[in-house]
Amino acid sequence: MSQAALSNIFPADYLRQFTVEVFKHFRIPIADAQLAADVLMKSDLRGIDSHGVARLHTYFEMLELGRINPQPKIKIVREKASVASVDGDNGLGLVVGPKANEIAMDKAAQHGSGWVSVCNTNHFGFAGYYPLKALERDLIGWAMTNSTKLVAPLWGAERMLGTNPIAIAFPGYKEPPIVIDMATSAVAYGKIEIALRKKTPVPKGWIVDKEGRDTSNPQDMIDGGAQLPLGSEYEMGGHKGYGLASMVDILCCVLSGANWGPFAPPFALRQEIPSRSVGKGIGHFFGAIEIDGFIDKDEFKKQIDDWIHVFRKTKPAPGTNGPLIPGDPEREAEAIRSKEGIPLLQPVVDDLLDIAKRTGIPFKGR
Amino acid sequence: MSQAALSNIFPADYLRQFTVEVFKHFRIPIADAQLAADVLMKSDLRGIDSHGVARLHTYFEMLELGRINPQPKIKIVREKASVASVDGDNGLGLVVGPKANEIAMDKAAQHGSGWVSVCNTNHFGFAGYYPLKALERDLIGWAMTNSTKLVAPLWGAERMLGTNPIAIAFPGYKEPPIVIDMATSAVAYGKIEIALRKKTPVPKGWIVDKEGRDTSNPQDMIDGGAQLPLGSEYEMGGHKGYGLASMVDILCCVLSGANWGPFAPPFALRQEIPSRSVGKGIGHFFGAIEIDGFIDKDEFKKQIDDWIHVFRKTKPAPGTNGPLIPGDPEREAEAIRSKEGIPLLQPVVDDLLDIAKRTGIPFKGR
Repeated sequence: MSQAALSNIFPADYLRQFTVEVFKHFRIPIADAQLAADVLMKSDLRGIDSHGVARLHTYFEMLELGRINPQPKIKIVREKASVASVDGDNGLGLVVGPKANEIAMDKAAQHGSGWVSVCNTNHFGFAGYYPLKALERDLIGWAMTNSTKLVAPLWGAERMLGTNPIAIAFPGYKEPPIVIDMATSAVAYGKIEIALRKKTPVPKGWIVDKEGRDTSNPQDMIDGGAQLPLGSEYEMGGHKGYGLASMVDILCCVLSGANWGPFAPPFALRQEIPSRSVGKGIGHFFGAIEIDGFIDKDEFKKQIDDWIHVFRKTKPAPGTNGPLIPGDPEREAEAIRSKEGIPLLQPVVDDLLDIAKRTGIPFKGR
Repeated sequence: MSQAALSNIFPADYLRQFTVEVFKHFRIPIADAQLAADVLMKSDLRGIDSHGVARLHTYFEMLELGRINPQPKIKIVREKASVASVDGDNGLGLVVGPKANEIAMDKAAQHGSGWVSVCNTNHFGFAGYYPLKALERDLIGWAMTNSTKLVAPLWGAERMLGTNPIAIAFPGYKEPPIVIDMATSAVAYGKIEIALRKKTPVPKGWIVDKEGRDTSNPQDMIDGGAQLPLGSEYEMGGHKGYGLASMVDILCCVLSGANWGPFAPPFALRQEIPSRSVGKGIGHFFGAIEIDGFIDKDEFKKQIDDWIHVFRKTKPAPGTNGPLIPGDPEREAEAIRSKEGIPLLQPVVDDLLDIAKRTGIPFKGR
């Protein structure tokens, strides 16, 4: 029996092909299916397990229920030279996102920068995917998205904002790029799920209960509580995380005409549908910057290399190996997983087997 | 004896005129002196005491020592339609900043957005000033700057980054604007200074000592320690604050050719000059976005009003009045101080009296 079979490790290409077939099953055009699968696989390759094929079953359910348009006509609603707003026609965010990001990159190539706000779209995968695409064209890339409400504003006792991530990447010369990809909540929702499963308490500052009180019991968050923004409490800068999440919300949603704040439609089926709609779908915001518009591109990249060397030499804090460069863990995961395959937890394999059973698309897993 | 004299409260216009005269004393052209004074006074009016006339003595010393060029020839080094890099010719940041911000705003009016990275500049006052100027032109405004090293990267034991603030503002229709203005450190340096003066401990997560160990003694930070980034430790998202500070550092400095990271030249005289120079002066980054390029401007502003109403109605956490809207405290301070005057601490008054004595410019304070 192979190592892969023993431990539920799958070659990326095997999962990619399965994912493409699942999307094609819903009459998603093949190029779009490949694009969507690429976003999911890149997440798994980079070790961001929560945003890869682990989410395929949710996309599958949304498509099956007709909640996502498999053949969207994505269109530019308004534009000026360096900016545009895009209507994603309720397509998969995994398709709308990459296409809107292309518009931002094309504008950057022509006008020095490009900024695209998107409405009427859905969950776009992991935010880091988009600046990674910009790096392929030697651009600085940005991406943000809103998401289903989970986070309370500082001094609030209810969910009003998503975990609203920000990603940005800068190319190096000989060094690999600096890739920042962060939720604006104190912690990823996935870490609360892990604590729930293990029945362990969570640190103070991650969540509040349904009355807005501090709690370390992850179940209190599930039972009507909320996550806290980056910084957690006022004394530690919780107003800053709230401010950043608000910025993402407004750039992605108010600027595009999507549903902002607590009105973001849910991605998972178990979440309730908001009582009000203030726009279309959820929203994304993409940016791309042509380095040559500011400074010689190679000069920039060599300085980034120098930046990386200097920061790697920072005196380490006790008990650590010193600071990482943003993007280090994901790049290391990608180096390993692109060779050795992608390990999947049993519940994820079960989900894929369920999709296989319901679609007739073969999947070899136990 | 008047209330003002008793409690060291000064009308804004009195302080403004004194500040203009101080800058003129160094042969700074009158329009530039007025611009610089406007940045400082706006900070005092908005209750950001640390970045107003409390800093005038430092600007004064830098000018007196010839470390700042009073008559800079600010020039665009490179540009494309929506982007530019600017060399501030070692002028006052209070003059270079507003002028570079104007370039970003002009580009936004023409091309939908404008993004300007600035090298060879100095301390530009409070970051929120710049998006406030953009609001006057009905634009969304951004500003960032690097600053003298104070903050350790997550898992580092030494100062490598400034408190590198981010500011952004969105206009409302009938409601006042949303104004986000935040350092990317866990806490403002000023709060550590206050604890030092009062000899009180600071919360865990604000600072580390010179070995990178947690400490609550503010003196440990002064004695070779460092501030921590927003999020503080890994578990609470310290890598996110470090990531944001890095983003600001790169956009302001690597993109413009300024001194990044630990090489930012100091603003205050007591700080040591870095061993290496990797560019010119410090760096800023300004952005401006034309709302009409994305969505009808009034529609956007009405949605912002709705956003504000919805967030004000958030269920409050226990012991609070519920969430604020970013910019609330500063706007309230401005309403009071523009009527009642600006209260100054005695050490600040003493600094202004010292300037008066050394320049011959009259100042009525005790």
